[in-house]
Amino acid sequence: MPSAAGRGQGPERDRRPDSGEQPAADDYAKERYGVSSMIQSQEKPDRVLIRIKDLTEEKADEVVWVRGRIHTSRAKGKQCFLVLRQQQFNIQALVAVGQHASKQMVKFAANINKESIVDVEGVVRKAHQKIGGCTQQDVELHVQRIYVISLAEPRLPLQLDDAVRPEVEGEEDGRATVNQDTRLDNRVIDLRTSTSQAVFCLQSGICQLFRETLIRKGFVEIQTPKIISAASEGGANVFTVSYFKSSAYLAQSPQLYKQMCICADFEKVFCVGPVFRAEDSNTHRHLTEFVGLDIEMAFNYHYHEVVDEIADTMVQIFKGLQERFQTEIQTVNKQFPCEPFKFLEPTLRLEYREGVAMLREAGVEMGDEDDLSTPNEKLLGRLVKEKYDTDFYILDKYPLAVRPFYTMPDPVNPKNSNSYDMFMRGEEILSGAQRIHDPQLLTERAQHHGIDLEKIKAYIDSFRFGAPPHAGGGIGLERVTMLYLGLHNVRQTSMFPRDPKRLTP
Amino acid sequence: MPSAAGRGQGPERDRRPDSGEQPAADDYAKERYGVSSMIQSQEKPDRVLIRIKDLTEEKADEVVWVRGRIHTSRAKGKQCFLVLRQQQFNIQALVAVGQHASKQMVKFAANINKESIVDVEGVVRKAHQKIGGCTQQDVELHVQRIYVISLAEPRLPLQLDDAVRPEVEGEEDGRATVNQDTRLDNRVIDLRTSTSQAVFCLQSGICQLFRETLIRKGFVEIQTPKIISAASEGGANVFTVSYFKSSAYLAQSPQLYKQMCICADFEKVFCVGPVFRAEDSNTHRHLTEFVGLDIEMAFNYHYHEVVDEIADTMVQIFKGLQERFQTEIQTVNKQFPCEPFKFLEPTLRLEYREGVAMLREAGVEMGDEDDLSTPNEKLLGRLVKEKYDTDFYILDKYPLAVRPFYTMPDPVNPKNSNSYDMFMRGEEILSGAQRIHDPQLLTERAQHHGIDLEKIKAYIDSFRFGAPPHAGGGIGLERVTMLYLGLHNVRQTSMFPRDPKRLTP
Repeated sequence: MPSAAGRGQGPERDRRPDSGEQPAADDYAKERYGVSSMIQSQEKPDRVLIRIKDLTEEKADEVVWVRGRIHTSRAKGKQCFLVLRQQQFNIQALVAVGQHASKQMVKFAANINKESIVDVEGVVRKAHQKIGGCTQQDVELHVQRIYVISLAEPRLPLQLDDAVRPEVEGEEDGRATVNQDTRLDNRVIDLRTSTSQAVFCLQSGICQLFRETLIRKGFVEIQTPKIISAASEGGANVFTVSYFKSSAYLAQSPQLYKQMCICADFEKVFCVGPVFRAEDSNTHRHLTEFVGLDIEMAFNYHYHEVVDEIADTMVQIFKGLQERFQTEIQTVNKQFPCEPFKFLEPTLRLEYREGVAMLREAGVEMGDEDDLSTPNEKLLGRLVKEKYDTDFYILDKYPLAVRPFYTMPDPVNPKNSNSYDMFMRGEEILSGAQRIHDPQLLTERAQHHGIDLEKIKAYIDSFRFGAPPHAGGGIGLERVTMLYLGLHNVRQTSMFPRDPKRLTP
Repeated sequence: MPSAAGRGQGPERDRRPDSGEQPAADDYAKERYGVSSMIQSQEKPDRVLIRIKDLTEEKADEVVWVRGRIHTSRAKGKQCFLVLRQQQFNIQALVAVGQHASKQMVKFAANINKESIVDVEGVVRKAHQKIGGCTQQDVELHVQRIYVISLAEPRLPLQLDDAVRPEVEGEEDGRATVNQDTRLDNRVIDLRTSTSQAVFCLQSGICQLFRETLIRKGFVEIQTPKIISAASEGGANVFTVSYFKSSAYLAQSPQLYKQMCICADFEKVFCVGPVFRAEDSNTHRHLTEFVGLDIEMAFNYHYHEVVDEIADTMVQIFKGLQERFQTEIQTVNKQFPCEPFKFLEPTLRLEYREGVAMLREAGVEMGDEDDLSTPNEKLLGRLVKEKYDTDFYILDKYPLAVRPFYTMPDPVNPKNSNSYDMFMRGEEILSGAQRIHDPQLLTERAQHHGIDLEKIKAYIDSFRFGAPPHAGGGIGLERVTMLYLGLHNVRQTSMFPRDPKRLTP
């Protein structure tokens, strides 16, 4: 029940959170707390807000303003201990009856719902002992004013502390954890956890490192259309769109457009964008919409020129993450413990037949031209890790039979192809190949695959006016993030995942 | 008609382009030319290919290998002059009967179809006089070997020289230019022109500068889903997708997801990705799919904090383009002459009512709450340019009535709103606003707009657990590229444009 609004230095405010209201007149601190009216850009106050991560011993005894969320609050007699949170950082704040705070003000502070956003003025004080559970362990904030900027509803759909609890701990101690659907249904809350903040800051870093590296190597970023007129790769697993009075499809990959850019002399191109797959796969690593980091590059004489560039790009990403995102990696590790990601320089490249030989030696029965099953991929990842001590490697020279029609056959053994996959912790994160740049051979291979030539006419025609030899590949961003961090479900690394059963939020 | 393949230092080859074939046995240069067999990564020759742009006087008398396209060829007695092209650069190459070249070899070279890709070994020679029409004016290449790497078909759907001719020149001299549909239908060829190469290198630069600036400002890159379950902004102009047994929509903007990220404490986010609009608009500036550069940011007290960040980001882009892409700007200017782009620092910000007043002074009749028509936008752009000498400005405080339901009303005048557009050369390139972060007000405004609350429940619920005040905006990449370069159609700055009538290539 709002009382009459007080007016202080801040914007207009009332007293909503304090349900057992005291008459404001009796309260010597009545200007020092309250619920601000909605910030509608009424004014431009001359007030500097300090970041919580910057509140250290150096700021001791300074008066500062901070905006943060109420992470927890605990009233204790004439005192109320708050933990204020800002992204991955938090600090303890104390509201105690005294010169600046009345008992009404302490009660008000204690009654603010968790996750509400508050502006707090306080004095930074050195803590008598390390404050466990806060990132700012050496200082606390002695609150002099507190105003609610945005009030959260009292019942949260999930508790942040539960959402960051390691599963093992939850199981052993019988403490609550949060299941995946609850997280995803309430993604706005779930994304506030330190783990989620770290995951998606690191993912932003992967994109940045990918592009930085490629721009430095002379690549050009391209934008390829997602609405296309024909299902490029045979028509399976493609989403249909109504397009005015006709219909169209969602691109399953930017590959054909990347190749057209190569035929148009851009030489080295990359793109970052959504990729759509109408596969009814409900696994830990499939999404119907994911982010593709795509590369295509003309080469001089051998597609290994391209393989080396892609592998080096991955290595630069791994190194950059180690250097710039150590805090985030450690934050995620607290909830999801995992071995540090290992890689070699230069990257290990095995031929497919070597991989098959390793698997056979381990007891797997498979033919020379069989594709790798998911369990065999994982097993091979373990065998490679044991033998070479790397979590990242390339498998080269896949059987032609298991690759798309546009894959260049091997010049020596026509059952093989100039194609490759790259793996992280035993799971595929990139698939690529030398592409056929000769329209005649491309036509033959398409026919061999039973593809309607009429539907890919524009594609084949792209190669009729001089086409350089070229190769490329596509990387799944969510998989790279998941596997680098040793997570177990791609939905953890997609902010708003899409699968056959989930379209919201 | 292929002759028996000769074998030299290069890969296997035959003599296809030379139709009036001489018996190879009579030809002392027979190993020095031919059509290479398709590059299938047969070998990794130890050969360094030099970039055409690096062929300068410093390399005089060196023997080099170059890969390029046959841009033009002209036979003249015992000589053949070729222009070899590599992206925006080209050089003259001479094949002349002598020690290295036989008359058959000259004939072979003269008969290679334009746009074919060749490997050439030659001696760099200082030119006796500047070579007009080539970027490398001081040197030419005396060819010793020439092999076709990829043969173009003899009839090109358009001529590159026609495609870069300024329209004025074409009209005055009656020389050919290429119309837009021919260009777009044959985009792989059209993108090879120096103008297209420059346009899309610069566009890649805009993306890079946008992200560089924002990462430096502490923003995080996010990835938002494009397939969504409900048409967020009322249901008009949205593409429908079949989604397994149900249906879904293509996102008209990432805005709701950007806002969710703000509610999830990411504080400052950006994304670059496709945006879909099912508008049946066939204008010079509308596409059904374009690339949005989107920003959303929590602010402390006033949305101008965000406006200033966005405006500064644009200024950093303009400056970066001036510094890093001068060559590209000049290349485009040759075909499309245009005044250099002017901007102020800090950016000019006018209120909507000031803009309306300027228009009225110029004779336009319009109400205070009318939206700006496209002609009035352009007129206002000219008036602003005259008065303030800037091609970039912000129009702030739009009438609430012409903005979406989630726009924050102005705190003083409820007919106005905390919203803004940004303009380049008199055309809108960004639309943005402070968003309503209070679920109650958001509900009221949605109802006022007649929006089905059930459909936006998840959106409104995002604000129920503490939401910081925030603002943002979305920039159209193709428009920024077009207007910065002074081009006249957004299809010139979309590699593979999509409009109601075009879905290919």
